[in-house]
Amino acid sequence: MKRTCLAIVLAAGESTRMKSSMSKVLHPVAGRPMIAHVVESLVNASISSAALVLGRDADAVATAAARDDIELSAFLQKERLGTGHAVLAAREAIARGYDDILVVFGDTPLITAAPLLAARQGLADGNDVVVIGFQTADPTGYGRLLVENGALLAIREQKDATEDEQKITYCNGGLMAINGAKALELLGKIGNANAKGEYYLTDIVEIVRAEGGRAIAVEAPETELTGCNNRAELAAIEAIWQKRRRHELMVSGVSMIAPETVFLAFDTQIGQDVLIEPNVVFGPGVTIESGAIIHAFSHLEGAHVGAGATVGPYARLRPGANLGPDSKVGNFCEVKKAEIGAGAKVNHLTYIGDAFIGEKTNIGAGTITCNYDGVNKHITRIGANAFIGSNSSLVAPVSVGDGALVASGSVITQDVPADAVAFGRARQEIKSGWAKILRERYLAEKAAKKK
Amino acid sequence: MKRTCLAIVLAAGESTRMKSSMSKVLHPVAGRPMIAHVVESLVNASISSAALVLGRDADAVATAAARDDIELSAFLQKERLGTGHAVLAAREAIARGYDDILVVFGDTPLITAAPLLAARQGLADGNDVVVIGFQTADPTGYGRLLVENGALLAIREQKDATEDEQKITYCNGGLMAINGAKALELLGKIGNANAKGEYYLTDIVEIVRAEGGRAIAVEAPETELTGCNNRAELAAIEAIWQKRRRHELMVSGVSMIAPETVFLAFDTQIGQDVLIEPNVVFGPGVTIESGAIIHAFSHLEGAHVGAGATVGPYARLRPGANLGPDSKVGNFCEVKKAEIGAGAKVNHLTYIGDAFIGEKTNIGAGTITCNYDGVNKHITRIGANAFIGSNSSLVAPVSVGDGALVASGSVITQDVPADAVAFGRARQEIKSGWAKILRERYLAEKAAKKK
Amino acid sequence: MKRTCLAIVLAAGESTRMKSSMSKVLHPVAGRPMIAHVVESLVNASISSAALVLGRDADAVATAAARDDIELSAFLQKERLGTGHAVLAAREAIARGYDDILVVFGDTPLITAAPLLAARQGLADGNDVVVIGFQTADPTGYGRLLVENGALLAIREQKDATEDEQKITYCNGGLMAINGAKALELLGKIGNANAKGEYYLTDIVEIVRAEGGRAIAVEAPETELTGCNNRAELAAIEAIWQKRRRHELMVSGVSMIAPETVFLAFDTQIGQDVLIEPNVVFGPGVTIESGAIIHAFSHLEGAHVGAGATVGPYARLRPGANLGPDSKVGNFCEVKKAEIGAGAKVNHLTYIGDAFIGEKTNIGAGTITCNYDGVNKHITRIGANAFIGSNSSLVAPVSVGDGALVASGSVITQDVPADAVAFGRARQEIKSGWAKILRERYLAEKAAKKK
Repeated sequence: MKRTCLAIVLAAGESTRMKSSMSKVLHPVAGRPMIAHVVESLVNASISSAALVLGRDADAVATAAARDDIELSAFLQKERLGTGHAVLAAREAIARGYDDILVVFGDTPLITAAPLLAARQGLADGNDVVVIGFQTADPTGYGRLLVENGALLAIREQKDATEDEQKITYCNGGLMAINGAKALELLGKIGNANAKGEYYLTDIVEIVRAEGGRAIAVEAPETELTGCNNRAELAAIEAIWQKRRRHELMVSGVSMIAPETVFLAFDTQIGQDVLIEPNVVFGPGVTIESGAIIHAFSHLEGAHVGAGATVGPYARLRPGANLGPDSKVGNFCEVKKAEIGAGAKVNHLTYIGDAFIGEKTNIGAGTITCNYDGVNKHITRIGANAFIGSNSSLVAPVSVGDGALVASGSVITQDVPADAVAFGRARQEIKSGWAKILRERYLAEKAAKKK
Repeated sequence: MKRTCLAIVLAAGESTRMKSSMSKVLHPVAGRPMIAHVVESLVNASISSAALVLGRDADAVATAAARDDIELSAFLQKERLGTGHAVLAAREAIARGYDDILVVFGDTPLITAAPLLAARQGLADGNDVVVIGFQTADPTGYGRLLVENGALLAIREQKDATEDEQKITYCNGGLMAINGAKALELLGKIGNANAKGEYYLTDIVEIVRAEGGRAIAVEAPETELTGCNNRAELAAIEAIWQKRRRHELMVSGVSMIAPETVFLAFDTQIGQDVLIEPNVVFGPGVTIESGAIIHAFSHLEGAHVGAGATVGPYARLRPGANLGPDSKVGNFCEVKKAEIGAGAKVNHLTYIGDAFIGEKTNIGAGTITCNYDGVNKHITRIGANAFIGSNSSLVAPVSVGDGALVASGSVITQDVPADAVAFGRARQEIKSGWAKILRERYLAEKAAKKK
Repeated sequence: MKRTCLAIVLAAGESTRMKSSMSKVLHPVAGRPMIAHVVESLVNASISSAALVLGRDADAVATAAARDDIELSAFLQKERLGTGHAVLAAREAIARGYDDILVVFGDTPLITAAPLLAARQGLADGNDVVVIGFQTADPTGYGRLLVENGALLAIREQKDATEDEQKITYCNGGLMAINGAKALELLGKIGNANAKGEYYLTDIVEIVRAEGGRAIAVEAPETELTGCNNRAELAAIEAIWQKRRRHELMVSGVSMIAPETVFLAFDTQIGQDVLIEPNVVFGPGVTIESGAIIHAFSHLEGAHVGAGATVGPYARLRPGANLGPDSKVGNFCEVKKAEIGAGAKVNHLTYIGDAFIGEKTNIGAGTITCNYDGVNKHITRIGANAFIGSNSSLVAPVSVGDGALVASGSVITQDVPADAVAFGRARQEIKSGWAKILRERYLAEKAAKKK
């Protein structure tokens, strides 16, 4: 599409019903702010300029919306006098001159590029106003779209609708495209002679027709227009987003035993023939290569899982975890900022942080990389084919060479050369019969306490 | 409301379809017995006396129902001859004299105060019998409420209903308020001349009308009247309860990414701007202050989480866990009967039991408070700004002073003074080349076994 | 039923929409391949012979289908020319002579024995072809069953249906029983004179009627006929299976707080009065005795849980875990190939593998059985009433006698006699004031790094 377009993103709401210490549009869906979803859809609709109309938390919202691939300008809406007034907060941007003006909302993160493109196409086809509508089973409360012979005559609010009009199930979704050449003129004609004294953007339909222009409606799926006024609605939006993305992944060749228990982030990437068991949570920044298995109760964020690797159950991969092909990270293991070599195993009750682990190395149960001294973080390097005995502590900075063996229960504070065995544990002593004596003493103490 | 009221709680059922070793009404919903939910709603409806009609597990049920704010008396229903007969098991309580008699069921734990108050208001308005009904999409099997000009004429059972009556969707919920002055007389007139030879409480509607009295129906939401006959229905009741409570919390300012995976207890309290990630389970007795984050896969019971604290993922807080503001309890950590000071961190693979941990102290990964000697439990005290190295064992009773440092992998059996370093680990030894030798020996052993 | 029956299981599909490296029918539902579910239903319908019509992954599919209680023969369908052609791939098996031929699909794993038995009964009643149909709310796209006076006249495909026929909601489920004596003759008459040039099994209805034979339809629930074409449909099938099985267990006396979060395997067995908390995953091979409690976030596979035992939260029982009555395996514990004696406790952060633990023994937090030396697995034996201190490492092969005590933090490499105390840890040393010195040094290093 060669036409230029300015999107105006309305995001100035007070969001009081969110009962939140931050602006509604900063609340995340799939791990990123709602407003970032909206801006991504603008980009997907080939729009390269947007004006943000902001109020509360303006700086944070502008930051959350920013991307490299779209030029954003920000405008403060100081008073809140309706959507018509809000759009004109971006008057200066509109005045720069665009073929298309597209008005969207910061709190409808489920919108995709398709209806935005359809609305812009409506302008390209010679219409002056294109409203994005939706069909719904229960239209009560929504503005109805009065369409005749393909033309949109008006948007009729519930309270003004006749009995027949109330039966109309085609409703106003709020989003709208406006002929850029006429936009300022049309917007300027919106009045506030109504009960609330507000400027309603929807009036533009009748205004443009009175001017001899033409308005139409294009349809979007109802779900894409779901807005967010409180946190229950936020959760409903999240649910729709998750369902949509899970379905995409499944039909692309990812198995999910119980998709309703898998929570994806906006940028989760999963290869073919990956199995995701029930109850897996993805934070942002995860990539899973083909053939990997993510067992139940796993939690991944900022991590890469190589082909054929196995994760969980109960594995937590934190940012910087990079699992090589066919490696394993098992139950009650946490991996952070660490390379796990191809075929290496970290199977049980282990913390690996700030570490490099070589190929085919086996990390015993209960191993801890002691990467923090209370002030600084230090690195642990373990070679290939090494064996770290269970319950060992590796006090970083420290290294263990290829093929080396650390005895179970050792505290390793010095580097271990390749093929060496390191012990860091006391010799065992046995006191015959002492257990019986101790038990009797403890029982006597307990009895004494009770008195 | 100044009128006196006796609630009669029918809870004598055999509950054979529950296939349970205990009475149905003892089965928990949201972490407490069904009957306790019902009694709470009585209290919320300003009722201060209730008669429990009991059968199986009578003592346990009476105990489960008991509260400080309502006077309960218990009556045994020895034979089971219908609801009319069950109510009269409490004849002695009715005879004490109350303005209102309110009949409720022990197995409808979703009932709220609103319909109970509406039923009592019906009596206050001069009616003698007020039946609580519900509208339903599929009335098949329910008794239909025959209402004319606001008067309830009769409750028509499915089998006796004409074709027209079968189309009625307003049904009998079973709960009923009766004029206390007439209750014993009316109940006494219920007969058992029917196929099963039982006394049906529902007959009271026609009886009171025959006596020149007046009956009406008041409506409750269908869900509030959901009863429980087997464990699938119990789960359905739990689901409705959870959905209702999650919604209340979300609109009050609690974020839940996937509310359907968060399981609350009857008394869970959560402050504003708290984030609850997917898959969190609350047992009874939990309070979360504002701004806290409860990460995925956490399990909390009898715990307090201070403002801004972070819990999980995979954290288990057991009774007596008390997390200070901005403290952290992280993955694979269990905390029981312990104070975690403001800003303190217990981040990985740790067990803290019977302990006090000071402000800003850092507990390393894999630390265990050894609080149990097989007979008694002992206390561990750790000061502020201390640092416990990873994989340490703190053998209680023991204390670690402010600013002290315990070296990784230490077993601490004696008190550590403030600002001291304690070591309790062996010095490391290295045996060059031994790993290779051991590997070869092990492989030889394996080969030998196979023969 | 004394009639002989050959089931023909069509499982030759390419399953391209699964986007999978293996045949669709190998994808698991409830922990076993779809095809194995189908074969089990054949067995439940008293069928003792089946012919598998295979294509992709023929050997693996035949292996997955195999059971002791049914005789299977396998046939390759080399070209894919429609269902009529597929059935004739098993011509040789049909020719052996059976009273009944029953055609089923490898990718409808929800089918139960009931409709199969009904179809066979239809043959026994003298019909030559019995089609299994289903009623559906939205029949669009399905073949409609044209039934008149109990006779099935034809199966009308969507594209050939008149407007009236399109309103029919009784549809073809694809499964079919055919008179064994006439099967080869009827199948041989199916032609391929249609747009795709394929042989459609559904044509047999009109063929048999033209021959003077009789066809009928029998109804199965729509869910039982759900087929699988992609992984989203696979998940939908899994969901139906899980819902069905959870319900069966609940009505049999198992409590589930949130059944929708409990994932069962095909062979999970759970006794009465067992409580399953939210978020529990069962792999194959699990048996739970009555009165046990499975807390939230537990994962069980190939394990036996004795009466009154407690598992979890966050317990992982792997194959060979055998928990005695009233034993406990608690949070962040993994048990593999191990006997846990009656009343024994493994409560926190522990790995028990290849071990025997006696009655009433207490395993402290953080205990690890070091069962693997990098090459071989070894066994740990712990007697009754023993006490293993926290953070201990038991280096197998090793044994600890009855009533013995292992001190916290010990590494045990030699056998511990009964009633003895074993220490395997260093004595504690204290360096006064060193913590302060270290802190200052670390801070200085950090400051230096920043420069």
